[in-house]
Amino acid sequence: MIGGDAAGMSAASQARRLRGPDELEIVAFERGHFTSYSACGIPYWVGGDVPERNQLIARTPEEHRERAIDLRMRTEVTGIDVAGARVRSRDLESGAEEWTSYDKLVIATGARPIRPDLPGADAPGVHGVQTLDDGQALLDTLAATEGRRAVVVGAGYIGVEMAEALINRGYEVTVVNRGKEPMSTLDPDMGRLVHTAMEGLGIIMVNDAEVTKLLTGEDGRVRAVATEDAEYPADVVVLGIGVHPETTLAKAAGLPLGDHGGLLTDLAMRVRGHENIWAGGDCVEVLDLVSGRERHIALGTHANKHGQVIGSNVGGGYATFPGVVGTAVSKVCDLEIARTGLREKDAHRAGLQFETVTVESTSRAGYYPNAALMTVKMLAERRTGRLLGVQIVGREGAAKRVDIAAVALTASMTVEQMTALDLGYAPPFSPVWDPVLVAARKAVAAVRRNPA
Amino acid sequence: MIGGDAAGMSAASQARRLRGPDELEIVAFERGHFTSYSACGIPYWVGGDVPERNQLIARTPEEHRERAIDLRMRTEVTGIDVAGARVRSRDLESGAEEWTSYDKLVIATGARPIRPDLPGADAPGVHGVQTLDDGQALLDTLAATEGRRAVVVGAGYIGVEMAEALINRGYEVTVVNRGKEPMSTLDPDMGRLVHTAMEGLGIIMVNDAEVTKLLTGEDGRVRAVATEDAEYPADVVVLGIGVHPETTLAKAAGLPLGDHGGLLTDLAMRVRGHENIWAGGDCVEVLDLVSGRERHIALGTHANKHGQVIGSNVGGGYATFPGVVGTAVSKVCDLEIARTGLREKDAHRAGLQFETVTVESTSRAGYYPNAALMTVKMLAERRTGRLLGVQIVGREGAAKRVDIAAVALTASMTVEQMTALDLGYAPPFSPVWDPVLVAARKAVAAVRRNPA
Repeated sequence: MIGGDAAGMSAASQARRLRGPDELEIVAFERGHFTSYSACGIPYWVGGDVPERNQLIARTPEEHRERAIDLRMRTEVTGIDVAGARVRSRDLESGAEEWTSYDKLVIATGARPIRPDLPGADAPGVHGVQTLDDGQALLDTLAATEGRRAVVVGAGYIGVEMAEALINRGYEVTVVNRGKEPMSTLDPDMGRLVHTAMEGLGIIMVNDAEVTKLLTGEDGRVRAVATEDAEYPADVVVLGIGVHPETTLAKAAGLPLGDHGGLLTDLAMRVRGHENIWAGGDCVEVLDLVSGRERHIALGTHANKHGQVIGSNVGGGYATFPGVVGTAVSKVCDLEIARTGLREKDAHRAGLQFETVTVESTSRAGYYPNAALMTVKMLAERRTGRLLGVQIVGREGAAKRVDIAAVALTASMTVEQMTALDLGYAPPFSPVWDPVLVAARKAVAAVRRNPA
Repeated sequence: MIGGDAAGMSAASQARRLRGPDELEIVAFERGHFTSYSACGIPYWVGGDVPERNQLIARTPEEHRERAIDLRMRTEVTGIDVAGARVRSRDLESGAEEWTSYDKLVIATGARPIRPDLPGADAPGVHGVQTLDDGQALLDTLAATEGRRAVVVGAGYIGVEMAEALINRGYEVTVVNRGKEPMSTLDPDMGRLVHTAMEGLGIIMVNDAEVTKLLTGEDGRVRAVATEDAEYPADVVVLGIGVHPETTLAKAAGLPLGDHGGLLTDLAMRVRGHENIWAGGDCVEVLDLVSGRERHIALGTHANKHGQVIGSNVGGGYATFPGVVGTAVSKVCDLEIARTGLREKDAHRAGLQFETVTVESTSRAGYYPNAALMTVKMLAERRTGRLLGVQIVGREGAAKRVDIAAVALTASMTVEQMTALDLGYAPPFSPVWDPVLVAARKAVAAVRRNPA
């Protein structure tokens, strides 16, 4: 196993469940200090909701070793010799190198954050937040810094979650975002709702702005983020501009990569064309079941599923990962954000024609206390009426409603079929027509209006 | 339209949307004082969460009349002459009777609460809670009564919701329940969790107890509820022992009724064997898509869907109601209760063999603040692994997760397919494996262990 986080160690654990140490020797290489941790939890640790770093660690190296997994921490794999069925590794403490041969290889090298190639991007006070070490370094900087001005570069999941974290810590937060609206995983009209809500939280939103450099002070520390038009003073800068699949090793070994730079696998998570090499987690591309295309999605829940599937297959069982529908949820303070399926531009790119509808409804019966507004946007294919995607922005109770659409997408339901879904109804939990059903009804009408 | 509540008036409104007053004359008879109100909201009005009765009314008689619906309030239909295509009605104020002929008839007569045939059941201080008038009468009694002891008879949805309402009003609440555990819509092992939680709320739970009579004082008012074994002092008694389809008129007219006493319809909600009569809402039986049998479920969300379908068909369009999977959600204070699909006894009755699994998980990532415990029980068919049912008991975030299973049931998914569902994941919203997926994984293992 190359990589000791979600995908790799899930695979190791599952394989071990199926095959004891007498049947299967498992060696796992991890170049970092931690195993099996929740990178998705880092913003909540930085923000103070999660007090202790160790709460984010699902399983320690010692716990893995107790399961008879030969886990080699701080050991980096530096090369894969596919023809020789062996990997070269280096102990990062001692510098010692060695070859280890394999019968079966699992690549779970994760993703690496995109670091802008800009002057000042490596200055003290500029932080990524992908690893626990990153999170600790940021917390150390926050503790050591008197100024309270933070700039977050990027307004995707990490960007908005870090904006919340820094607001919670009492910072003045500016988010500088390349896109026209935050959350480019939503259509711009839905991103606009996020934009407005973030401003309502006191976050300064700078959209449609390209960062040109990071300015440093006489002490060498970052002091501002510059765009073509302006400078935004910063005592600390957090970079949240996305990740790339970490496939340097795989590429060097000649393994097949997709358009997004991720490893390509079959449905059993086996690297295409390679009988004895599997890959999963943030380093692979996954099949989008709605568009029929490969995508790269770095998300712990997928990595865990991949690991489970890989471990079953490596352990002599059988399992597949059929693909994703592109579900994602997030929040900024009490604003909930969710999406699944295709955005308008995804649908266009996939060659689909569609209708879109947007409705406002509430999380509970309108008369019930704390009924919270939510906006639901739905895309349905022209003629067939097949559901293509749903986006939801609202308050409490908004985000997880996207699961209804995620299951419906997986089942290739039409919006007309969805209108009959028997969803949980009681006044504290839903209006008599759930907001997703209200959207489905409107989508049915839109599809009917355009029968051509 | 016979009946002016959810099903009847949804049908009327939808038919009017499709056909203007020049094309379609709509006459609706309602024997009560209100139209289109949320009976499901009555417990929250009684409990004080909803301050005003009128908040429960979605549309007043005047609003319906503005849509050119000839709505005759306080007018009871006393007979249906199928051969003559006419109904007899009586004005409850004047006593005047008349015949009205129809081209198309919609029966939406709702349900009537089961009143126990017991001494004292009609005494002052004994209340049902099915209609707005019932709710007002109960509130009047509560206002006029000094004692603070309430007994709720029945521990289904209405029973537990009324227990909450009376707790919220500061009453000492005893629930007397015929079943071994409350919430007989759950399996007893899950009902047991509700039982324990209700006791934790200070509610006295008396299970496995048949009420034999209601004792009255010298003033004729109720003073206690008696079972074979004991007497429970009561200043007020609420009856929540379920409802029957109100099909007296339909039966007298010779229309087809099912085993549960509800009208039988086709998928377009047309009464079987009758080209020009439709029926919907609490007076009909619905097809359970999992067991393949008819059931009676009195629930506003179904009534609204029926009305929508009937209105489309009566208005010259086309729509169907394919059936239900048996989803229901409720709560007692902060305890959330949900179910969908078949219980163990339903599955046995349907001739199905199955595996059951029960898991404990949390609403959010375990390390995230306010992660609430929930118990998820899942039934999967032997050999096929098809999902048969899910029950969930837990705290915040538990109930609406049942929607995932409701959609999966509708799509006839197997538990193995469910393990790959792309559900919304972020630490504030779910563990990396959603509780429903944890249950599905365990169900897969159970099905695999018994391949015979």
